[in-house]
Amino acid sequence: MRRLTALLVLGAASVLAAPSASSAATREYWVAAVPVTLNIAPNQRDAIHGTALTPAETVFGTVVYRRYTKGWKKPLENVTAPGSGNSDLIPGPLIRARVGDKLRVHFKNLDTAFNRPHSMHFHGVEYKPDSDGSYLPGYSGRDADVKPGQTWTYKLTAGKDSAGAWPYHDHGKEMTASLEGGMFGMLSILGRREKAPDREYVVVFSPMGKFQAVNGRAFVGNTPVFKSRVGELVQWDVAVIGSEHHTFHVHGHRWRTPLGVPMDTVTLGPAESARIRWRERDPGTWMYHCHVESHMMAGMIGTYQVKRAR
Amino acid sequence: MRRLTALLVLGAASVLAAPSASSAATREYWVAAVPVTLNIAPNQRDAIHGTALTPAETVFGTVVYRRYTKGWKKPLENVTAPGSGNSDLIPGPLIRARVGDKLRVHFKNLDTAFNRPHSMHFHGVEYKPDSDGSYLPGYSGRDADVKPGQTWTYKLTAGKDSAGAWPYHDHGKEMTASLEGGMFGMLSILGRREKAPDREYVVVFSPMGKFQAVNGRAFVGNTPVFKSRVGELVQWDVAVIGSEHHTFHVHGHRWRTPLGVPMDTVTLGPAESARIRWRERDPGTWMYHCHVESHMMAGMIGTYQVKRAR
Amino acid sequence: MRRLTALLVLGAASVLAAPSASSAATREYWVAAVPVTLNIAPNQRDAIHGTALTPAETVFGTVVYRRYTKGWKKPLENVTAPGSGNSDLIPGPLIRARVGDKLRVHFKNLDTAFNRPHSMHFHGVEYKPDSDGSYLPGYSGRDADVKPGQTWTYKLTAGKDSAGAWPYHDHGKEMTASLEGGMFGMLSILGRREKAPDREYVVVFSPMGKFQAVNGRAFVGNTPVFKSRVGELVQWDVAVIGSEHHTFHVHGHRWRTPLGVPMDTVTLGPAESARIRWRERDPGTWMYHCHVESHMMAGMIGTYQVKRAR
Repeated sequence: MRRLTALLVLGAASVLAAPSASSAATREYWVAAVPVTLNIAPNQRDAIHGTALTPAETVFGTVVYRRYTKGWKKPLENVTAPGSGNSDLIPGPLIRARVGDKLRVHFKNLDTAFNRPHSMHFHGVEYKPDSDGSYLPGYSGRDADVKPGQTWTYKLTAGKDSAGAWPYHDHGKEMTASLEGGMFGMLSILGRREKAPDREYVVVFSPMGKFQAVNGRAFVGNTPVFKSRVGELVQWDVAVIGSEHHTFHVHGHRWRTPLGVPMDTVTLGPAESARIRWRERDPGTWMYHCHVESHMMAGMIGTYQVKRAR
Repeated sequence: MRRLTALLVLGAASVLAAPSASSAATREYWVAAVPVTLNIAPNQRDAIHGTALTPAETVFGTVVYRRYTKGWKKPLENVTAPGSGNSDLIPGPLIRARVGDKLRVHFKNLDTAFNRPHSMHFHGVEYKPDSDGSYLPGYSGRDADVKPGQTWTYKLTAGKDSAGAWPYHDHGKEMTASLEGGMFGMLSILGRREKAPDREYVVVFSPMGKFQAVNGRAFVGNTPVFKSRVGELVQWDVAVIGSEHHTFHVHGHRWRTPLGVPMDTVTLGPAESARIRWRERDPGTWMYHCHVESHMMAGMIGTYQVKRAR
Repeated sequence: MRRLTALLVLGAASVLAAPSASSAATREYWVAAVPVTLNIAPNQRDAIHGTALTPAETVFGTVVYRRYTKGWKKPLENVTAPGSGNSDLIPGPLIRARVGDKLRVHFKNLDTAFNRPHSMHFHGVEYKPDSDGSYLPGYSGRDADVKPGQTWTYKLTAGKDSAGAWPYHDHGKEMTASLEGGMFGMLSILGRREKAPDREYVVVFSPMGKFQAVNGRAFVGNTPVFKSRVGELVQWDVAVIGSEHHTFHVHGHRWRTPLGVPMDTVTLGPAESARIRWRERDPGTWMYHCHVESHMMAGMIGTYQVKRAR
């Protein structure tokens, strides 16, 4: 929580707060593709097999989405929400709105390391073709092919069917390398007057080299530790990127689909997503993981810690 | 549209029209298994990687379902609906009915090339065991083992739970080779008084050799180009054949499940299907594709072109 | 049915009957992990390809869950319900309750063959962390690490969101080997006053070596033969264990999701499950199978036999 406090002191409170329900707004985000060095398992441990991992296995250079202040002046951390546990390099910034809002996502390609073109393609929201961000020779324009040093503004609308959690990702000419390296993030869109959750956790399942990662991290000790307290309304924004299916499971909890069917495990294929909510009532340390056995064994697992009510 | 006009001139209008809602009917289809030479990428281009493909990589002999006039006198094209973009060898003919109708599908095996037994197995509809078309030694009969030169009539009923889009496919003794070669098609069943769509697109995702195909074609330039106009009611009949899961995604659009949950990507496993509808309002050229990244890269992608309202 | 009658004579009727709806109860189960020798294809036939299988290919030692009388005095067969066709080594005993009931599952590790620690982890029900049964170094306790000779009692509650069919499975330190060997079973939980089905079939899809198994058996002739009669209410409890997705399909039948959407094929990923019900009306011998083509070809297929009404 220390890191979060620091951000608040710096005046980033509005960054973190849930969007206001009062009236439709235009929300602006400044995002850049930036080269970074990523360690998928900073503790150098495979906690599943109880073995050591060397930096040669776990550290690599890649490109990620990072949030900036207006005009790309200063980079911000990719924190999602207070207490979320999401404050690292992957996924990109959580882009938040309410149904009826407009979004302006100003994107700059700062990829001087790989020198690749990049883009942003958004699920769940409304937009015109020149905000699609998807490369197709002969059809697509600069939105889909933002070259190093260039910028593009994606104009999106959170429409009546946009409430929920949705992925965004690079859909440019070299998207395979970009997706494998972590160029994805999530949109979280609340209904016009919907209650914001007390805690919001972003979980993106994706393969990274020989590992199966949660938010670009593998194995307990490296993956996010999500925290809550009994009585809080918690929300999980879960998405999948890559070529495999995953099944998201949280121990000791069940939830209901939007239409009321109870479940505790859900299959998601690439680019599918789910917004999962419950009022917390089960204190303890619980696991969340992909229930595809080989994925869990390759690192796609973390912990969720629930404190007793005050 | 030229090809379509020709068909209309030939008196095939009733073939293409949506089934009448007036009263329950018995609808007859004449279908044969016919050997053909298929080019999965007639333009000899891999538009994803920007490379050339040789005919040695893309052309092969196979067997497909083809519609015929009564008594298998004359072959018809596998056109589905006006403006559908579906007018090629795979999938087989779109078999259409309304809830309450009976279907008589007269099948003839004309596979003189591979000399294999074939069958038709239908999802979503009601039938007795001798119309199951599925080979099981000791149990199944001639419906499941139609040998070259033989015929069988499958008797189906569109029952109260049959409304929707469903696959049919070979389920005979050598179904592995048949499915890999394209022996599948779709049923489209409307409710008794349900409004027919203005446009109906059939999309079957299946692997073909090293490619991932949409309707037996790979890569933009070869896969179907679906067309509509703002204001039209469009319907996508999507199914999967093979051993892999796929996630169907259309850019710039969202739809609602039958129960009202909005989505823009849906996972389908083998033999699963979805009927997706929306009233069109977004002009432009959009991509549709499987969002399993490796599948899209292997050709499972096409375009959808929406014109402005007149 | 002979085997079943024998059990009834032995006084095991209460074991087999559906839980009473009268008032909430505490239901006790005595289960052990026991080493067994399993033949995945006792008839030594691959009925799909029409070839012979040798015992060297199909017989192996493994550990399974087995039901016992109170105090682990005497082993019971893993029969689920009268006429179910489930009466073999895999899956483990069907654990049954109604919403509002408490469950006490007394588990003993009798694995003297492999000498591995084992556990039970339950989906769909409520419990405290010390009944989670999931191994995580530094967090979990004896519930997750029951060593040979040791016991643990898992305390579960069938809560308001627990109605349905759910898997349970080993989640201990060596769960990979355990799951591949068949250490899984199912919970079947009825609503407080819900009608019990006339027939209840348990189907767990999992890979076993080079085969794809239904309840630890591969190919028609070895897999369960489920039986019913026209007019009966039949219930299928279907779950998936492993790393692959599967699509459950029954020929000649359709069913409705809990919310009323008709289907005849459903994708399930690892640890997902479905409770499927219909009032039988279609006499004949039908196939049920995984519609992932390569899985069906590797044995994941069986028959369902419906007799005419008396």
